[in-house]
Amino acid sequence: MSHEPLATTVADRWTATRGPLFTDMYELTMAQVYVTQGISEQRAHFDYFFRSTPDYGTHQAGFGVFAGLDPFLSWVNNLEITAAHIEALAAMTAPTGTPVFGTQFLDWLATPSRFDDIEIRSIAEGRVVHPHVPIVTVTGPLAVCQLLETSLLNHFNYPTLIATKAARVVQSARGGSVLEFGMRRGPSTGVNEGIRAALIGGCVSTSNVEAAIALGKQPIGTHAHALVQAYMALGDGEIGAFRAMAATAPDECILLVDTVNTLDSGVPNAITVFDELRAAGHEPVGVRLDSGDLAYLAVQAAQLLDAAGYPDASIVLSSDLDELNIWQILTQIADYAELLGIDAVSVSKRLVYGVGTRLITSHGSGALNGVYKLVGIENRDGDWTPAIKISEDPGKVPLPGRKAVWRLYDQRGAAVVDLIGLADEEPLADEVTVVHHPSHDGINQVIRRADISHIELLHDTVFSEDIDATSTPTIDELAERCRVDVDRLDIGVRRLVNPHRYHVSLTSKLYELRKTLVADAQV
Amino acid sequence: MSHEPLATTVADRWTATRGPLFTDMYELTMAQVYVTQGISEQRAHFDYFFRSTPDYGTHQAGFGVFAGLDPFLSWVNNLEITAAHIEALAAMTAPTGTPVFGTQFLDWLATPSRFDDIEIRSIAEGRVVHPHVPIVTVTGPLAVCQLLETSLLNHFNYPTLIATKAARVVQSARGGSVLEFGMRRGPSTGVNEGIRAALIGGCVSTSNVEAAIALGKQPIGTHAHALVQAYMALGDGEIGAFRAMAATAPDECILLVDTVNTLDSGVPNAITVFDELRAAGHEPVGVRLDSGDLAYLAVQAAQLLDAAGYPDASIVLSSDLDELNIWQILTQIADYAELLGIDAVSVSKRLVYGVGTRLITSHGSGALNGVYKLVGIENRDGDWTPAIKISEDPGKVPLPGRKAVWRLYDQRGAAVVDLIGLADEEPLADEVTVVHHPSHDGINQVIRRADISHIELLHDTVFSEDIDATSTPTIDELAERCRVDVDRLDIGVRRLVNPHRYHVSLTSKLYELRKTLVADAQV
Repeated sequence: MSHEPLATTVADRWTATRGPLFTDMYELTMAQVYVTQGISEQRAHFDYFFRSTPDYGTHQAGFGVFAGLDPFLSWVNNLEITAAHIEALAAMTAPTGTPVFGTQFLDWLATPSRFDDIEIRSIAEGRVVHPHVPIVTVTGPLAVCQLLETSLLNHFNYPTLIATKAARVVQSARGGSVLEFGMRRGPSTGVNEGIRAALIGGCVSTSNVEAAIALGKQPIGTHAHALVQAYMALGDGEIGAFRAMAATAPDECILLVDTVNTLDSGVPNAITVFDELRAAGHEPVGVRLDSGDLAYLAVQAAQLLDAAGYPDASIVLSSDLDELNIWQILTQIADYAELLGIDAVSVSKRLVYGVGTRLITSHGSGALNGVYKLVGIENRDGDWTPAIKISEDPGKVPLPGRKAVWRLYDQRGAAVVDLIGLADEEPLADEVTVVHHPSHDGINQVIRRADISHIELLHDTVFSEDIDATSTPTIDELAERCRVDVDRLDIGVRRLVNPHRYHVSLTSKLYELRKTLVADAQV
Repeated sequence: MSHEPLATTVADRWTATRGPLFTDMYELTMAQVYVTQGISEQRAHFDYFFRSTPDYGTHQAGFGVFAGLDPFLSWVNNLEITAAHIEALAAMTAPTGTPVFGTQFLDWLATPSRFDDIEIRSIAEGRVVHPHVPIVTVTGPLAVCQLLETSLLNHFNYPTLIATKAARVVQSARGGSVLEFGMRRGPSTGVNEGIRAALIGGCVSTSNVEAAIALGKQPIGTHAHALVQAYMALGDGEIGAFRAMAATAPDECILLVDTVNTLDSGVPNAITVFDELRAAGHEPVGVRLDSGDLAYLAVQAAQLLDAAGYPDASIVLSSDLDELNIWQILTQIADYAELLGIDAVSVSKRLVYGVGTRLITSHGSGALNGVYKLVGIENRDGDWTPAIKISEDPGKVPLPGRKAVWRLYDQRGAAVVDLIGLADEEPLADEVTVVHHPSHDGINQVIRRADISHIELLHDTVFSEDIDATSTPTIDELAERCRVDVDRLDIGVRRLVNPHRYHVSLTSKLYELRKTLVADAQV
C-alpha cells in the first residue's frame, strides 16, 4: 500500500527530519493495542542503557560519553501532532482494505498535551557513562513511554558513539587540538548531530559552517588542493595560489603544501610567502599536510620552518586520522626525532589534527548497542511490578524496577565503581558491602566504605510538569563536563587498546530481585 | 573565537540541517580568494567520482548504486543566502580581530541568483556506478563550483554507500522481502537519507513512519518485546499480549515469538491465537524471530506452523542481519532441511528480513571515498585547460578535462565496460579499440566493435538555466532503475565475496592527455 506523500512541492519533496512521527511503525501499533485494550494509561518505567562500550576491532573503548540529551528534550518539548499527521495515519490500510489505525487511537494520539505527563530522569549530558547503567529513565503512561522509544534511541545512540570516539581521539592527541572535518563523507544530515557530539567529546571546532554557527562556535578550515590546481592551470603555479591565500587572509594564513611535492615545492613556496607576509607586518599561522608519511613529513617540515625562522608555525595534519593513527604518528615522531638528535616535543607541540571520516563514522564500530527497555509497570491494583524479558543470553536480562545509580570515588578522587541499586536503597550502608557483576552470575566484589571518599547520585529530573526546560548548557560546558569526568578515570580505563574494565556493580537487593523474577518466569 | 548562535529559542536551539551554509569553512575561504583575486568567474569543471567500491573487510562490493541526486538538486534549487547568514559570516574574526570575510566577498555571496549560472550533468540516480567514473560533473564559475563541494559530497557519499549495501542485502535475500529497520541505531537525522537510499537499493519499505510518509510508502513493523513484557507483568502472560495484538490488528497480525521461549511458548501461543483469529474470519500474517539461531528456529517454526494449518504464514527474521548473515541463514536452512528430509524452499520462500543497524551504517565500510575534483578551468584567454593534482599515488591523479562516459553492453545484453573518454570523442570508431586501465599504467584491454551490442551515453543535464527541475522520479522508479541495472551485471560482478572486477577503461586520447599533463607538471 502506498499513498501520496504529505509534501509534493519541489522545495519540500524530501522533508523527513525529526517530527513527531520520527519513530518506528511498531511503536504506533503497540500504542494502539494499549489504547484499545484499556491499558495505555498504566504507569510504566523504561530504562535507556547500552550493553557494551564500542569495540573497534583492534582497540576498544573503556568508557562512553553520553550525548544527545539536549536535542532529545527539545524534541519532546516540541512534539505536536497536527491534522496532517493524523490524516496520513488514517490513510494507511491493511491489505484487506481495513484502516491500520482506528478512530479511538487517532483521537487519543491527537489529544493536546498527550506527551506532557511523563517524567524523564537522566545522567547529565557530557558525563562519562558505562555499560548496563540506566543512563536515562522514562516514567509515565505505558503508551506514551512506548511511543518515545525509537526517537529516544535515535537521539542518544549515534551522538554517544561519536562523543565517545572524539574523547578517545582527543586523548590520543595529548594536548594537540583536534578539529572536526567529517561532513563530506559523514552520514548526510546526521553529521550535524555527529559534530555536536564531537565537540562534546573535546574537538575544539568543526569545519561545517552551519553547524558551527548553530553551536555558537567559529568554524575552521584551510584550503583544498583545488585552489592550487586552479592557479597552476591558470599558469601562476603553486606559489601563485599561496600568494592569493596570503593576500586574502594575511592573519590566518595556513597553506596546504602537498599538491605538487611537499618538501621540494610546498614547504619552500610556503616559506617564501610567509617571508613576504612577515615583511608586510603579518604573522603566518602554518601549513597543512594531507597525504604521505605524515610523521616523517611533519618532522621535515618542522625543520624547514625552524630554519626559516617560523618555530611557532602550526602543522595541521589530516588524512584518515583516528586515535590509533595519531598515536602512531606521535610515536614515530619520537623515534625519528631521536634518530635525528632533535627534540620530538618541539615538533609534536605544534601539531593540530583535522579528523574527519573516521570520527564522524566511528570507524571500526559504527553503531552503539543502546536499548530502551520496559523495566516496571503499575499493575491494575496500582502496585509497581518489575518487568523482565527471559532471553537465552543472561547478560541480556534487563535490570528490573526503578533504580538509582551511585558513582563511587576512591581516596584519590578517581571514579572506581558505578553502583546500581533499587531507588529506595541507601548505598554502602555498612562498612563492608558485597556487590555483584551486572551480567555474570557469581562474580562479586567487596567495597569497603573507608576506601570511598565520595558517593555521587548520578540522575537528575530533566523533564516533568515542574521542570522549565529552557536552561541548557552551552557546548563548551558540555565539553568541560566530559573533560573533567575523563580525567577522573583511572589511566588504565583510559587506555586506547585493551582498556582496564571499569566496575559496574549491582546491590544485593537488585541482584536478588532479578534472580527471583527470572526463576518465577521460568516456572 | 565564538559568537552568539543564530537561533537561541528552545525550539530552534539545535537547528543545523542543510541550509546554504551546510558546507566546509574552507570552501568560503577559497571562494573569497577567487573573488578578491579576480578569478571567481572563470568557468571551471569539477567531477564527482569514487575511487573504489566499499570493502567490508571479509567481503567487497563489485559495484555501486548512485543515490542522493534528487535531494541534492532540491538543495541547489533552493539555495538562498539570507541577511542572517551574511551577518553570521561578517561576525567571524581572525585572532587579530580582523574580519574573516570582507565586504567584497559578502556582497558577491549575497547577490541573488548567485548559484543559477551552473550546469550539472549526472548519471541517473539509482543507476549502477563504478570506480573512477565521473558520476556527476559541475561546470560554472570557479567560486560557485567550489562552494558546492562539501554539500555535494555530503549529499552523495552516504546515500550511495547505503544504496549499494541495500542492493547487496536484497540480492542475498534471493527474492525474500527486505525491510529497513535501522533508525534506532543509525546516524541521527541521517537515517532519513539512509532510508531513502535503502529503498532505492531495493528494500520494500521502512519502519520509520515519517520517512515512509515523505517517500509515499506505507511504513511497516510488528511489535516489540515490551508488549509481551507489559502483559506478563500485568498477569496476562505472553498469550494475553498476542490476543491483544490480534484484537487490535486482526488483518495484519504478526507476533514476536521469542520473548519467553520461541518453540516451547512463543510459536504454540501464536498458533492458539491464529486459530482464534481464523475462527473469527481473519487470516494471520505471521511470526517474527529476533534472537537465537534464526535458521534453526525458522525451520522449526515453519514445521509447527505447517502442522497447525498455516503454510502461508510469513516468518520475519531480524537481529543484526546483513548480506552475509542472510546468505548464511539460507545456506543453513538448505543443509538442515536436507537433514530433516523436508523442502528448504518451502521454508525460505516464506522468509522476510528486517535489516537494521548493519544496513543503515554500512557495516564493515562506514564511508564511501567519493571526491569532487577540479579537472578543468577556462584560462584567461578563454581556453579550457585541464587541471591535475600530482600525487604520490598515481591512482589518485584525477582524469583531466571534460569527459563523456559510455556503458558498453555485450551481445548477451550484459554491461561489460564503462568507457571514459574526452567529451568530443566518438567511442569505438574502429573495429578494434585499445583502452586503458584508469589507475594502473600499462594495463590495456582490446574491445572489438562486433562484440558490443549497445553503447549507452550515461550522462544527462540535470541542472541548468534551461532545465525545469520539478519532474522527479518516484522512489519506486528509482528502485526499478537499480534492479534493472543490477540484473544487467555479470553474475561474477554481483558475487558477495571477492567479486569479479567490472571494467572501467580510458580511451587512448584521455589516457595520453593525463600522461602528458603529469609529465609537464613534473618538469
